[in-house]
Amino acid sequence: MKYQNDKVSDINIAYIGGGSRGWAWGLMSDLADEQSMSGTMRLYDINFDAAKNNETIGNSIYDRDDIKGKWHYQAVKTIEEALRGADFVIMSIVPGSFKAMESDVHTPEKYGIFQAVGDTVGPGGILRAMRAVPIYRDFAKKIREICPDAWVINYTNPMTMCTRALYEEFPEIKAFGCCHEVFSSQILFTDILEEYFGIKNADRSDIKVNVLGINHFTWLDKVSYKGIDLIPYYEKFIDKCGDEGYLDSRQRVRDPEEMKYFGCWNLVKFDLFKRFGLVAAAGDRHLAEFVPPWYIDSPETVKKFKFALTPMKHRYEANEKKIEKGKRLASGEERFEIVKTGEEGVHQIKALVGLGDLVTNVNLPNRGQLEGFPSGAVVETNALFSRDAIHPVAAGKLPYGIQHLVMRHVINQEAVVKGAFAGDKEIIFRAFMNDPLVSHLKPERSRMLFDEMVNNTKEYLSGYQN
Amino acid sequence: MKYQNDKVSDINIAYIGGGSRGWAWGLMSDLADEQSMSGTMRLYDINFDAAKNNETIGNSIYDRDDIKGKWHYQAVKTIEEALRGADFVIMSIVPGSFKAMESDVHTPEKYGIFQAVGDTVGPGGILRAMRAVPIYRDFAKKIREICPDAWVINYTNPMTMCTRALYEEFPEIKAFGCCHEVFSSQILFTDILEEYFGIKNADRSDIKVNVLGINHFTWLDKVSYKGIDLIPYYEKFIDKCGDEGYLDSRQRVRDPEEMKYFGCWNLVKFDLFKRFGLVAAAGDRHLAEFVPPWYIDSPETVKKFKFALTPMKHRYEANEKKIEKGKRLASGEERFEIVKTGEEGVHQIKALVGLGDLVTNVNLPNRGQLEGFPSGAVVETNALFSRDAIHPVAAGKLPYGIQHLVMRHVINQEAVVKGAFAGDKEIIFRAFMNDPLVSHLKPERSRMLFDEMVNNTKEYLSGYQN
Amino acid sequence: MKYQNDKVSDINIAYIGGGSRGWAWGLMSDLADEQSMSGTMRLYDINFDAAKNNETIGNSIYDRDDIKGKWHYQAVKTIEEALRGADFVIMSIVPGSFKAMESDVHTPEKYGIFQAVGDTVGPGGILRAMRAVPIYRDFAKKIREICPDAWVINYTNPMTMCTRALYEEFPEIKAFGCCHEVFSSQILFTDILEEYFGIKNADRSDIKVNVLGINHFTWLDKVSYKGIDLIPYYEKFIDKCGDEGYLDSRQRVRDPEEMKYFGCWNLVKFDLFKRFGLVAAAGDRHLAEFVPPWYIDSPETVKKFKFALTPMKHRYEANEKKIEKGKRLASGEERFEIVKTGEEGVHQIKALVGLGDLVTNVNLPNRGQLEGFPSGAVVETNALFSRDAIHPVAAGKLPYGIQHLVMRHVINQEAVVKGAFAGDKEIIFRAFMNDPLVSHLKPERSRMLFDEMVNNTKEYLSGYQN
Amino acid sequence: MKYQNDKVSDINIAYIGGGSRGWAWGLMSDLADEQSMSGTMRLYDINFDAAKNNETIGNSIYDRDDIKGKWHYQAVKTIEEALRGADFVIMSIVPGSFKAMESDVHTPEKYGIFQAVGDTVGPGGILRAMRAVPIYRDFAKKIREICPDAWVINYTNPMTMCTRALYEEFPEIKAFGCCHEVFSSQILFTDILEEYFGIKNADRSDIKVNVLGINHFTWLDKVSYKGIDLIPYYEKFIDKCGDEGYLDSRQRVRDPEEMKYFGCWNLVKFDLFKRFGLVAAAGDRHLAEFVPPWYIDSPETVKKFKFALTPMKHRYEANEKKIEKGKRLASGEERFEIVKTGEEGVHQIKALVGLGDLVTNVNLPNRGQLEGFPSGAVVETNALFSRDAIHPVAAGKLPYGIQHLVMRHVINQEAVVKGAFAGDKEIIFRAFMNDPLVSHLKPERSRMLFDEMVNNTKEYLSGYQN
Repeated sequence: MKYQNDKVSDINIAYIGGGSRGWAWGLMSDLADEQSMSGTMRLYDINFDAAKNNETIGNSIYDRDDIKGKWHYQAVKTIEEALRGADFVIMSIVPGSFKAMESDVHTPEKYGIFQAVGDTVGPGGILRAMRAVPIYRDFAKKIREICPDAWVINYTNPMTMCTRALYEEFPEIKAFGCCHEVFSSQILFTDILEEYFGIKNADRSDIKVNVLGINHFTWLDKVSYKGIDLIPYYEKFIDKCGDEGYLDSRQRVRDPEEMKYFGCWNLVKFDLFKRFGLVAAAGDRHLAEFVPPWYIDSPETVKKFKFALTPMKHRYEANEKKIEKGKRLASGEERFEIVKTGEEGVHQIKALVGLGDLVTNVNLPNRGQLEGFPSGAVVETNALFSRDAIHPVAAGKLPYGIQHLVMRHVINQEAVVKGAFAGDKEIIFRAFMNDPLVSHLKPERSRMLFDEMVNNTKEYLSGYQN
Repeated sequence: MKYQNDKVSDINIAYIGGGSRGWAWGLMSDLADEQSMSGTMRLYDINFDAAKNNETIGNSIYDRDDIKGKWHYQAVKTIEEALRGADFVIMSIVPGSFKAMESDVHTPEKYGIFQAVGDTVGPGGILRAMRAVPIYRDFAKKIREICPDAWVINYTNPMTMCTRALYEEFPEIKAFGCCHEVFSSQILFTDILEEYFGIKNADRSDIKVNVLGINHFTWLDKVSYKGIDLIPYYEKFIDKCGDEGYLDSRQRVRDPEEMKYFGCWNLVKFDLFKRFGLVAAAGDRHLAEFVPPWYIDSPETVKKFKFALTPMKHRYEANEKKIEKGKRLASGEERFEIVKTGEEGVHQIKALVGLGDLVTNVNLPNRGQLEGFPSGAVVETNALFSRDAIHPVAAGKLPYGIQHLVMRHVINQEAVVKGAFAGDKEIIFRAFMNDPLVSHLKPERSRMLFDEMVNNTKEYLSGYQN
Repeated sequence: MKYQNDKVSDINIAYIGGGSRGWAWGLMSDLADEQSMSGTMRLYDINFDAAKNNETIGNSIYDRDDIKGKWHYQAVKTIEEALRGADFVIMSIVPGSFKAMESDVHTPEKYGIFQAVGDTVGPGGILRAMRAVPIYRDFAKKIREICPDAWVINYTNPMTMCTRALYEEFPEIKAFGCCHEVFSSQILFTDILEEYFGIKNADRSDIKVNVLGINHFTWLDKVSYKGIDLIPYYEKFIDKCGDEGYLDSRQRVRDPEEMKYFGCWNLVKFDLFKRFGLVAAAGDRHLAEFVPPWYIDSPETVKKFKFALTPMKHRYEANEKKIEKGKRLASGEERFEIVKTGEEGVHQIKALVGLGDLVTNVNLPNRGQLEGFPSGAVVETNALFSRDAIHPVAAGKLPYGIQHLVMRHVINQEAVVKGAFAGDKEIIFRAFMNDPLVSHLKPERSRMLFDEMVNNTKEYLSGYQN
Repeated sequence: MKYQNDKVSDINIAYIGGGSRGWAWGLMSDLADEQSMSGTMRLYDINFDAAKNNETIGNSIYDRDDIKGKWHYQAVKTIEEALRGADFVIMSIVPGSFKAMESDVHTPEKYGIFQAVGDTVGPGGILRAMRAVPIYRDFAKKIREICPDAWVINYTNPMTMCTRALYEEFPEIKAFGCCHEVFSSQILFTDILEEYFGIKNADRSDIKVNVLGINHFTWLDKVSYKGIDLIPYYEKFIDKCGDEGYLDSRQRVRDPEEMKYFGCWNLVKFDLFKRFGLVAAAGDRHLAEFVPPWYIDSPETVKKFKFALTPMKHRYEANEKKIEKGKRLASGEERFEIVKTGEEGVHQIKALVGLGDLVTNVNLPNRGQLEGFPSGAVVETNALFSRDAIHPVAAGKLPYGIQHLVMRHVINQEAVVKGAFAGDKEIIFRAFMNDPLVSHLKPERSRMLFDEMVNNTKEYLSGYQN
């Protein structure tokens, strides 16, 4: 990397999962829109053709007039090639396959367990972690060997356990997990700001929040815009539209087809506020999976709370469309649009190369930033990003009522990671049994479900001994 | 107190709840059987007549030939009189009334929640704590004022929260909680010792155990007799009689009528071992209340696991019988028998006055003795009792699978105590909702149950603001 | 307080020590220069005339054209009047008197102990703390009673122990300690930036630093300007001018008379870097007092390291001059100049009322922000200031070599505060004996020195029992 | 190992340093005197002939009538042979050579630094650790590989750092450090017991103590005999003989020649009690090295406090005598006497094989047993020894005045171990500079002394990079 005149050039980024259609294109777009940085991104994917396709797309825009940040893209055949000389490593992979995800999401339904996403906690999240942790352990080994000083940004779910696996293997790794769920709450608050103060078009990042919790289950105990404390207005807002729910401004402009599977009227979020007095930051589809099955014990309850159980069928179809789109982008049939994704990844990289400090929420091992939680467990709070440094911000404590709910997953997640490292399915099964979506099952039923899910995905679970 | 020639005389004991029929008589008997100590016990009870009755009983045996320890008994009308000059304070009370207990135990049944004991965790334990914690807070205030250097021994349930309340109010208090549940496991192991090694009549205290957990939910990761590791034999034993269950030698000689309500064939204990690989120390009636309702979701399941839901009806009847017996003992119609209770109380007092060190399990605020649990939470481990000192023994860590289960209650119990100190029922309700016997209920149903239970016992809950 | 259109009005500030000539005038000037805030400052001082004089000065500028921030000033006779309704409380007092300071600084010289400042650590710092802690304890009590939600900014030394006393008395207080010593290092680095990169007039606050330690003994393990890591250049710079030392650009323009007593050629700072590999952030006059008397065992050594032992004589004279200046300012004989002080106080207040987040160094109880140091001890690190919130930034660990040096003072300072709260001089004496400037004395000599210093200042030490 | 009828046979002990003349003979004697255990001890020493000599001695007594415990001894040529199949590993070695010790003890004298022992802290202790830690690291590697479940008992100094090195390399090692210094205080208290109560011949182990600190710098905050608190009598005793000092009964019967070099009149111990109010447990020769050079800044001061700086000359001579004695014992010219050493080693082994619980002081990584000290640092407190388990006893907190003094060494020792593991002399030098016997030296002088000591012993320091 070279710094000169407020710009940094020759940045090397390794993209693991570089054949990705969603994240990779977004990142390309954000990088293209940022004039202060340039360099090379090496794309590694177990599907080399997908990476190659992205190489073509990325390089095709290099000379376009609307491109401010100049990046070369290069698909590589081995992860080692990607990592060599990397300043940053970005990770966004599918652990296993769509077929494995299908088992994650739908097998539990036979046992009366429903999941909206199924990639974070719950039976699906735990099985996904069983596949992902060994992969991430390998990534950590390779990074230690090849580019130990690189900054590593993880986007893959289960976020907490993937990030934890990196640190478990290589404690000095400079890794963090990056997720946009908190942003959706900030957007909701910009709507509230407009509603009560008439302030339009406030930027999401002007809504200042204090973030406490774990990924997809973070809470906000402070929300303000400039001199205004927004929490009392949130309360009013819920009083007003708490029964109907509320579709925020950003969702209102989304593709209605998508909304069928991903839309969220915030009824779970509002209900959690009424019960616990704090703002749950993530979307309802995630939130419902973290608590006992109050909101998700049947498709009817889900309907009542106006969110959706995304079926794998939809994900297959959506993926097919992206593959087609990828081909068109690579062939030039379709123009690659530069659109701000709203993600923080590029801002974070910018801060880390020294181009301005940034405070944003991030997943990191607990070093005291979340009081009352075990040291080392990956938690999500704000952090200060600065040149070659991320310092988590001491977020304080969660109130007891919520600490329960979060701690249960923290202990579970620690156990799953340890179990995966030990190759010991029993440790993981005990966590599985203790998941709030599962724990009401008789142990025999938990065992049957677990065994069935393991069996369905056994080709991805070769490292387990028992 | 005066020490001379291996004896300590002039010991002052204050007995709070000194009208008690069970614990008080047992203590009198154990004291009478111990020749190295003598002194005065002042009996305080909100039922003064009951205390007076015990005074009569206690003093009536003073001159008997079979009495080795000479104690004077004195019923007093105020707690202050009892505490003045006390070297030891013993607490064994009923927080509230039998009627309140009836609500604790039976109201939840309407919501499909069953409890075998209902005084520790679960809806019953939490409501009982709501009544007990303010009382214990008052006790702590009085002790700080009148006898801050006294050793305080608590027998009242919910043990953890009563003891915690003492420390929350007066952090320097020298209090500990004392419970015999672990002994039942030691007795079971003496049976196993006889079974596999032919060693008969081994003393319970020769079974050396390492104790980890919280009261009524402790676990043993080491069990040995002299040079023999007994864990492998426990495993064999379970293989042999795991389906039928096993009634230990001590239970076999108990009153069959009693056994209907308190008997325990260890099927829950054995099942927990099979699942988690550690010995759960308490009896099945307690254990079943600490985990999700695997063993206790219906009377049928309870029957299958061969333990009992003790109905309040039985407690009323048993109490009546004790009242009658008390009258007979006081009048001399019935002779007070000196029988070893098997409790540790007198041994602990003996160690604390300097007459020999003792290692036994005890409930104390965590100062590191239970790794991975919050500092200050009351936990149960072994401790070394020595002259005017109790040093908990570092018990190590629970395995993840069990840590989950225990931590859930630890956080809950911390919350209940804080809520009771703050007079804030909402904090407590959030813990209530998170109890494993309750958490499968929809929040609305939890609310209804909680409100109903609070309403039933409201005369004992005057200090709560909301 | 009222927020509207990016401005906050009706802010109430209580200034304890409001007769101050240095800090008070600087604050008035900074407030006058900041257009987004307005309100009232109540000035309380044990010297009411001094406060009254400052009221006159403050109000005299209200209508001036160059004044952007409009503030009313009001001298009050009691601290209670000052605190009532306060949003912010500023504290800047002299604990005791100049005469007491004279004993602090000069009595130890008879024992061969020299101090450059004598208000932080060393014999002088500890005696000063003995006077200050009880005063601060009283402040905390009053704040708890009158304005528990106010933000409290302390400027008084010994910073750490004054701030610690506030929290010891009132753990929920929203207090922090504010000090500019770190800025001097940032200024030095702007000189280095110019030297090696030709970048002129970089702002101090563009030098990004990670701060670890305790007040006046903080260390920087990261120093950067945009994309440039400045640590390697610091090393080069020391190689170049390490023998001669270096007078930074800001000092070069100061009054040469002042420089005789306060000038600092950074030879101590450079030497510490050579020994320990980290940048010591404070000026040499402070640094020399924190380590064994390597740099300060005699006036000759001090001369060799090119810093000064500020004699009280100079402080008396300087104070006289300020009193005269105060009179002239109040009478209008001299015009009150609006000059940027470079202090952070007003920026911090601005952030706390919601007008933009700020990251700066601050003294706060350790909640994990300084790894390896006791929880609750007041430490100095960066913190994120946001609307009604300060979140310390996890600064990481000090290397062992430095951890020693810092921990020694942390334990000492904890002991001094506890000793002052207990009114127990012996606890304090044990810390005194262990101070690195004192510990080489034989215990008898330490005792003599301590007793002499206590005796000299006994009129300010009435609360001590032994 | 086999347990039967209260006896354990077939115990395998590996003795590293098995050519030792002091410890090895004592252990042989204690084992011979204990009828409940038997087995084989394999002796490994870098001096094979010395080990062989001990084999001869050990086996020669096997059939003697006065031998209750039957042990076979076998000298082996490699450490691997010794460790194979070991149930226990005993370590008692000389790290380096007597010549290196000569530098440790006497080189600092040129710089005005005197040491009575020079093997624990101070310049000598640190240099000795530099040699010992890499050796212990190797031991830990071999144990992990060959006998990971063996219990490891260390006797070598510097105790803390040797034991710490074992855990740093192999965190799951079952190692502890064993030292008799605390016993000397217990013996002193038996004298006091006789003086004030006329109780003669009380056993050392009947003096119950609570132990807090680090090896050779432990403190006792509780000392009792049965129902008697002995601390008040200690105070009286000091008042009575505090100026003259006191030679305890055990020392009075020692060889007067030995007493010239090892005798101790407890004047340092008494002085520390007067200053800090707690009983310092070790002998004066050790204590004087842990504090600033109050008692040891010159041979004159040492004489005044009536202890001795043991010269290496004496150690050479004493060693020669032991070599001669060894020859005589092996040849049968001199009879091997069975004398109780008073050491705890054999009792500890007995407890660990299951033959009765034992509470005694021991050096172990801090898991909370010493509040306020870092987790993992090796500390000395009581512990409960039980079958295959050692549970440290929570000893509580040291008062601030003493916490300072102890923490300084704890941090230093952590740094020395880390420095030795990193092969980085600079980390160690920073600790060296901070040692209380060294820190008054100018850094240049510290550097010279350190370099000279390193150079003197460089043949044992090959693993250091800088």
